[in-house]
Amino acid sequence: MKEITSIQNSFIKQLTQLKDKSRERRKTGLFLIEGVRETTLALKGGYEIETLLFYSGLISEKQISDLITSQTNLIEVSKEVYEKLAYRDTTEGLLAIVKNKTHAINDLKFNTKTPLILVAEAPEKPGNIGAILRTADAANADAVIIANPKTDLYNPNIIRSSVGCLFTNQIASGSTTEIIKFLKAKSINIYCAALQASVAYHTQDFIKSTAIIVGTEATGLSHEWLKNSNQNIIIPMQGEIDSMNVSVAAGILIFEAKRQRNFL
Amino acid sequence: MKEITSIQNSFIKQLTQLKDKSRERRKTGLFLIEGVRETTLALKGGYEIETLLFYSGLISEKQISDLITSQTNLIEVSKEVYEKLAYRDTTEGLLAIVKNKTHAINDLKFNTKTPLILVAEAPEKPGNIGAILRTADAANADAVIIANPKTDLYNPNIIRSSVGCLFTNQIASGSTTEIIKFLKAKSINIYCAALQASVAYHTQDFIKSTAIIVGTEATGLSHEWLKNSNQNIIIPMQGEIDSMNVSVAAGILIFEAKRQRNFL
Repeated sequence: MKEITSIQNSFIKQLTQLKDKSRERRKTGLFLIEGVRETTLALKGGYEIETLLFYSGLISEKQISDLITSQTNLIEVSKEVYEKLAYRDTTEGLLAIVKNKTHAINDLKFNTKTPLILVAEAPEKPGNIGAILRTADAANADAVIIANPKTDLYNPNIIRSSVGCLFTNQIASGSTTEIIKFLKAKSINIYCAALQASVAYHTQDFIKSTAIIVGTEATGLSHEWLKNSNQNIIIPMQGEIDSMNVSVAAGILIFEAKRQRNFL
Repeated sequence: MKEITSIQNSFIKQLTQLKDKSRERRKTGLFLIEGVRETTLALKGGYEIETLLFYSGLISEKQISDLITSQTNLIEVSKEVYEKLAYRDTTEGLLAIVKNKTHAINDLKFNTKTPLILVAEAPEKPGNIGAILRTADAANADAVIIANPKTDLYNPNIIRSSVGCLFTNQIASGSTTEIIKFLKAKSINIYCAALQASVAYHTQDFIKSTAIIVGTEATGLSHEWLKNSNQNIIIPMQGEIDSMNVSVAAGILIFEAKRQRNFL
């Protein structure tokens, strides 16, 4: 087994780039995962793990044996190297180099006749994307679609804040135009969350094929979404400020659909 | 009008402490607010503004005239001083030194016979507390109560992530023991969100006086809450991971109550 003990090692420098730079992830088609649970979920979600790096002071080879396939390279790293690559508040001792997926809209497959889909347009904060992915997992949503993405999905802060739900959901990303075309072709009803809407969300029938679309907190959804929706919907608000965290709004809408569907 | 141009000024050093240290805020009974909207909401929420600091390169004295009362000290600061005290991504040019409130449980007043209250036990992340306060504002909840707080409410990250909803909500904090005693004395039904619960949230009648209690993502609610509830409730989940962001879970529960109440 290979061992790396120096943070000056060129491979380790490349991994630092992979962690920090979206461009490097796109260029190589690889990304980094930290932690046993996240890596296990990625494997279960059909991701191919190219290399596992572990620091034996925190985790043993035996403890990660379930994650090792015939294709996996295994590298032991020193404490110094591990700390260089890991987030400071994590002490699990495991990192994985993983091949990305394409996430094409047309690759989406639904196992139900009335799918429930969550679409987020141009979400910016990794923490909000992570929270949305956790909600979608909990709701067993049929897909999460990111329209006009501002960041790549493999941003380490998304992986971390999703607590691995990046790998448990069926996820696609693409332009707003192609997503609208896809949803219409599949006869999936488009419900756009909009502060300007006059129809309250809970009056709608989400038992039918449903896509719930949320925009950014700053500017809401683009005109293209609003004019192509079956119905624009609002969460009625009665506070001083018409303001809600976007992942909270998505949670309220998705779980109203779940309630109507009797959590089936 | 007083002017401060040096970041070495002892008063400015004290304000840096006020921004960064919970202990300093407790000791002085003061805290810092940044931004016009937040300061306006604090004033509207009955907070007393002791001092306004502004940087004339970004905001004029005239633009803040609505915020100035006969008790307000006004200080003009240099660009350097402003940047020392402000968050880097804010460029509004206004800071306020504000007197804190006590937030005692027994000071809570309800304008309705069937209040809707959100209680969060020991929430840790300022971003989650901020998102919960935004939801409570949007729902026009009668109060938000923080049980066994881990941080003081005037943490600048809470103020910022609440987009000022820290000042629009009626907020109290105290020990779990005293909050349970208070709710029982007022005959307010206690619904504890718990992953171990067997009763789904949407089967309950939240039209009556209702307190919804959420715990931490790591450990949930304390035994004291769970054994003193009228009903422990669960949000049914069907994903790979039983995991939801705490502010999303709170949003789903509060808005189910709002839906049942017809958003009145």
